[in-house]
Amino acid sequence: MTAIAPNALDGPVLVIGCGLIGTSVGMALRTHDVDVVLHDALPGNVEVAAARGAGRALAAAGVDGVEPYLVVVAVPPTAAAAVVTESLARWPGAFVTDVTSVKSGLQRAVDEAPGADRFAGGHPMAGSERSGPMAASAQLFEGRPWAATPGVRTRPEALDAVVDLALHVGAVPIIMEAAAHDRAVALVSHVPQVMSTLTAARLNDAGGNDLSLSGPGLRDTTRIAGSDSALWLDILGNNAADVRAVLELVRDDLDRVIGALGHDDATLGEVLESGRRGTTLIPGKHGSQPSRVDVVHVQVADRPGELSRLMTDTGESGVNIEDLRLDHDLGRPVGLAEIAVAPGVGDVLVEALTSRGWTAYR
Amino acid sequence: MTAIAPNALDGPVLVIGCGLIGTSVGMALRTHDVDVVLHDALPGNVEVAAARGAGRALAAAGVDGVEPYLVVVAVPPTAAAAVVTESLARWPGAFVTDVTSVKSGLQRAVDEAPGADRFAGGHPMAGSERSGPMAASAQLFEGRPWAATPGVRTRPEALDAVVDLALHVGAVPIIMEAAAHDRAVALVSHVPQVMSTLTAARLNDAGGNDLSLSGPGLRDTTRIAGSDSALWLDILGNNAADVRAVLELVRDDLDRVIGALGHDDATLGEVLESGRRGTTLIPGKHGSQPSRVDVVHVQVADRPGELSRLMTDTGESGVNIEDLRLDHDLGRPVGLAEIAVAPGVGDVLVEALTSRGWTAYR
Repeated sequence: MTAIAPNALDGPVLVIGCGLIGTSVGMALRTHDVDVVLHDALPGNVEVAAARGAGRALAAAGVDGVEPYLVVVAVPPTAAAAVVTESLARWPGAFVTDVTSVKSGLQRAVDEAPGADRFAGGHPMAGSERSGPMAASAQLFEGRPWAATPGVRTRPEALDAVVDLALHVGAVPIIMEAAAHDRAVALVSHVPQVMSTLTAARLNDAGGNDLSLSGPGLRDTTRIAGSDSALWLDILGNNAADVRAVLELVRDDLDRVIGALGHDDATLGEVLESGRRGTTLIPGKHGSQPSRVDVVHVQVADRPGELSRLMTDTGESGVNIEDLRLDHDLGRPVGLAEIAVAPGVGDVLVEALTSRGWTAYR
Repeated sequence: MTAIAPNALDGPVLVIGCGLIGTSVGMALRTHDVDVVLHDALPGNVEVAAARGAGRALAAAGVDGVEPYLVVVAVPPTAAAAVVTESLARWPGAFVTDVTSVKSGLQRAVDEAPGADRFAGGHPMAGSERSGPMAASAQLFEGRPWAATPGVRTRPEALDAVVDLALHVGAVPIIMEAAAHDRAVALVSHVPQVMSTLTAARLNDAGGNDLSLSGPGLRDTTRIAGSDSALWLDILGNNAADVRAVLELVRDDLDRVIGALGHDDATLGEVLESGRRGTTLIPGKHGSQPSRVDVVHVQVADRPGELSRLMTDTGESGVNIEDLRLDHDLGRPVGLAEIAVAPGVGDVLVEALTSRGWTAYR
């Protein structure tokens, strides 16, 4: 994808809700000198956001005097519909968008409201394990997808405003209808979260030394299960129907696997092959074509500067790094770096590193 | 865990089966000057393994003249029981072990054989997406768990031989009964594999732009689903009962989640919390205590030497890297490095990198 030059965002952008997302939007827009006005039910949040360079702080009364070009509603999901409809009424010349992670319910609520033609939903696929304006960053959205979800009444100009917002903050705008968005995030985000949780939940049954046999595969599949439960309870609740539909298909496959285990039929192989095929559909370098790289393993002592020295030596070998993983091994003061490089040059890197004293192998 | 000094491995170690694991065992033992004798049904494999420094190549007739201290049976799972019982009969003075990934079935087969007291099973938790002696490495087992699984008739000396073998090749020996081992790997390896497969299989249903919303969570949870289907068909088949038992508990939880979605009861929160708790039980730096590190994000252009330059600059900041992930972003010629450092020093690293021209943030 080539970068698209955004249209200028005319006039002030009003950010309502100065948490992680709202403050980050403001900070990113300010790097383009867009006039950003900040508002939050908690005046303290506005102060912090303004101090971090996210825009001008205005008290509630002051906000009434603003004529925003675009209102970005970045309040918690439960408050979003009310603030969106209020904003449409209060600023009849403004486009309005939001940043919540499930779109259909909100869209239905807004469809009934006067001015719904000026609303287009949005969902930046970015976040952090931290929250609040102190965790914000002008780069939070850099390179991340930002779904823009027009409703049936949305004017093209309102959709354009969301696309331009996404481009200004460095995100990749992806236009899809609210219902399609919610089905997509069920598939690529919400169901993987549930599956990770279900896998990790079984570890509570582990006895004795069981978990000492853990490897990188377990860590990868369960990492996101460590996320905040309250947040996910909210997300899954808001997208219950779409998540349930996918999970019911998962259950069908799971039943087939349970039924096939220990029997010599083709089912198990079919499911495994279907999963392998699924991984090849994911865009990006990770996971998609694992066989198209050479992987070099290097032992790295767990002391300051070792990884730096390794990367320097790797860089001087002239070999470009496609990917890098660091794996801290069980019971050893040493980690294992897995460096992915272009096919055919793995041995070059092994030789270069070995000659500099590293224990490197493929 | 402090390193344990292994006892010397007296007399020759006979490696039967010169594939990835057998050849790697030979290469690792040779670094300790242990006398290793190599055998394989395919003479070509023996030649390659010997040429790679894994030990002495002996033809079938020559092997009869050897009096091994330990026989390491590293043949494919389907042949292992026969080769183990043959070896126990052929070398009545030798201890015998194997390297297959499921232990109970083999143990039952060996229990009936004369000399079963000289057998203790083994399972190195190491592998590679490649196979054969050319893929072998003396460092393959470095820091990895190596399960040693004594049977009811196993003599302590036979178990010691497997523990010493594991220590010689740099692995961390973990002693557990065959049945306990198989339950453990069902939990930490085989079921996560199935769950990853079931998650990835649903991606085949994706339409339009759905997968453009993919993020790191999807890639992590589905990475191992890209593994070789034939290999996993074999492993799951050999551990069918234990895998099924865990999957049935997963199905119970899945049914609870499906039933609870969209209803305001406590079930969903309980399952999510149970998963979160499960992740804290995994040993190692990954996944266990995600909140005990500061994570710094840095943009890295996708050209040779950039990651190297980043690591050099990071190293010169004096901040030790706890962990590092590289994430290639959607549709951008730039990747995002996530650098985990000790709590409290994230801002130090951000400042150091920013002053050197990087776009870094927390």
